[in-house]
Amino acid sequence: MTKVLICGDLAWADAEAKEMFAGLAEIVRMDSPDRDDFLKNLKPGGKYAGIICVYRHNISADFIGVFDSDIIFALAETGVKWIAHNGAGYDQIDISACISQGIKVSNTPGAVDDATATTALYLIISTLRQYSKAERNLRKGAWKSGLYSGRAFDLTGKTLAILGMGGIGTRIAELVHAFPMRVIYHNRRPAEGAPSWTEYYPRERLAEFLKGADVLAISIPLKQETEGLVGEEMIRGLKKGAIIINTARGKILDEDAIFRALEDGHLGGVGLDVYPNEPEVNPRLLEFDNVTLLPHMGTETKDSQKKMELRALGNLKDFLVQGSEKDLVLEMRPAGL
Amino acid sequence: MTKVLICGDLAWADAEAKEMFAGLAEIVRMDSPDRDDFLKNLKPGGKYAGIICVYRHNISADFIGVFDSDIIFALAETGVKWIAHNGAGYDQIDISACISQGIKVSNTPGAVDDATATTALYLIISTLRQYSKAERNLRKGAWKSGLYSGRAFDLTGKTLAILGMGGIGTRIAELVHAFPMRVIYHNRRPAEGAPSWTEYYPRERLAEFLKGADVLAISIPLKQETEGLVGEEMIRGLKKGAIIINTARGKILDEDAIFRALEDGHLGGVGLDVYPNEPEVNPRLLEFDNVTLLPHMGTETKDSQKKMELRALGNLKDFLVQGSEKDLVLEMRPAGL
Repeated sequence: MTKVLICGDLAWADAEAKEMFAGLAEIVRMDSPDRDDFLKNLKPGGKYAGIICVYRHNISADFIGVFDSDIIFALAETGVKWIAHNGAGYDQIDISACISQGIKVSNTPGAVDDATATTALYLIISTLRQYSKAERNLRKGAWKSGLYSGRAFDLTGKTLAILGMGGIGTRIAELVHAFPMRVIYHNRRPAEGAPSWTEYYPRERLAEFLKGADVLAISIPLKQETEGLVGEEMIRGLKKGAIIINTARGKILDEDAIFRALEDGHLGGVGLDVYPNEPEVNPRLLEFDNVTLLPHMGTETKDSQKKMELRALGNLKDFLVQGSEKDLVLEMRPAGL
Repeated sequence: MTKVLICGDLAWADAEAKEMFAGLAEIVRMDSPDRDDFLKNLKPGGKYAGIICVYRHNISADFIGVFDSDIIFALAETGVKWIAHNGAGYDQIDISACISQGIKVSNTPGAVDDATATTALYLIISTLRQYSKAERNLRKGAWKSGLYSGRAFDLTGKTLAILGMGGIGTRIAELVHAFPMRVIYHNRRPAEGAPSWTEYYPRERLAEFLKGADVLAISIPLKQETEGLVGEEMIRGLKKGAIIINTARGKILDEDAIFRALEDGHLGGVGLDVYPNEPEVNPRLLEFDNVTLLPHMGTETKDSQKKMELRALGNLKDFLVQGSEKDLVLEMRPAGL
């Protein structure tokens, strides 16, 4: 019987998984303590031999490491045709290696939008209102001392600049429209799904885009071209007192440039859910006042986790049953999509 | 010339105040270090003698105490006709004494709605997602350890029960509609300004109202009838795991009942901006995990503070120029309004 490998957490859709694949495929769980054991068991006679599909969650990297070319080649060797990644960001999978080996990769784009955008909204409120500092104040018994309403602002009427109007960016735009904030965005091209009341800024108007922002929210994927993209130049292009929110990937932000801009007061604050070397957090971040820091919680809700698990499993099942190719990652989509 | 007393902070509308009252009234600042000095100077020959109007900010209580009957009687004696309170909650003013002395009292209702509702939204996100604990975790170097997505939830699709659909309650409803959350509310009467998609629960259906809530948000004023209103009975009427948010006044919540319900796990969390004896915070609150605590920051933004100051000053000016009675507190409004 066809084998599906569950590689990492399947916390909420366990019962559903059994039902979905009953009579269709055998579910095998990855329980290797380390990479060597995993690679050994992918070989003929090993417990993972003959798997066709892999469901992958980032937590598996704690045991066998990321899906680099070594793992991709070994998966191809045993016959894997599809990796269904649970999550929006798939930077832990070597996509070029997958393309070279004919392995399709899907992610769970829509399923993460709501929870991640809610996290961005939380960070926007927290930094504009200075609420992280306020709570730390209260918890050390200092009540409001040192807090100053002159550095706290309403969201209403402020301008939010969204870098990357994909699914998450669009959902952020929807949530802040309730205030409303004015929403401007920058993409390579105008986004099809962007609400009519958002304003598109092409590359030629990037300087204007940055200068107009009270808050810059980052929601682009991490790639070679986007690593360090928000660095000294972009940050200094913002007006004094502006705030940066990052719920995408830590490496998109140049941390040293952030430290300099917090130090000299150019930035009014930052709100981060992601860091360059998770789970490490640069201790210098903790030295600044108006900084809100979450340990990569963007999609950490029972509701969204289950939605993501079901979506990833659904992609595998649709592939097995109908040969359909749903939620293929950007690099694998036919041109024009 | 007519005298207007500025009693407490006028932080952002100082220049505007000078302009508004130029040629109309002399602006006198309350600078008494204590109550005795204040009362002495209200007497004939004192620096506050002859004031007609008082602009009041809660911060003045740090020096001369709240506007209890002693102060109200002294103000009446010197000729005060109007107290324009800067803020939505006016529980620091003895309204009965004002009525008996013919002093009108206004507050700044609309001006606080947006900032306070934003605080409520922040507390809803923080408690449903466990973000206060998450940030404390990160700051002590524990990253995600001890956090569990099974106890974190999306706002989308959950039910928010608003106790008190006034200006702030209505604004909370508008902000969470973006997700959307389902919004139900309880008032003595259906609220005129309530959005069409909110559902009204009268007193006869209070049990159903509570049972349906994932989150209960308190936005009623503090009065004798509302002190301790959200106590053991109401809290136990909520379903297990529900969350309570309070951005109104601390004394509306029975703190001991909250502690019991957090202790035995009946409540999933609480988010508080207000406390019974501010600036004191009961240290027991700090013992529980899923509790987000702000030091009464509901309206602490430059934007909203200025809006409130201008509104309170505007009420005084309109009274002086046209004899109009704007933003009168509930107890002083003609019946039916």
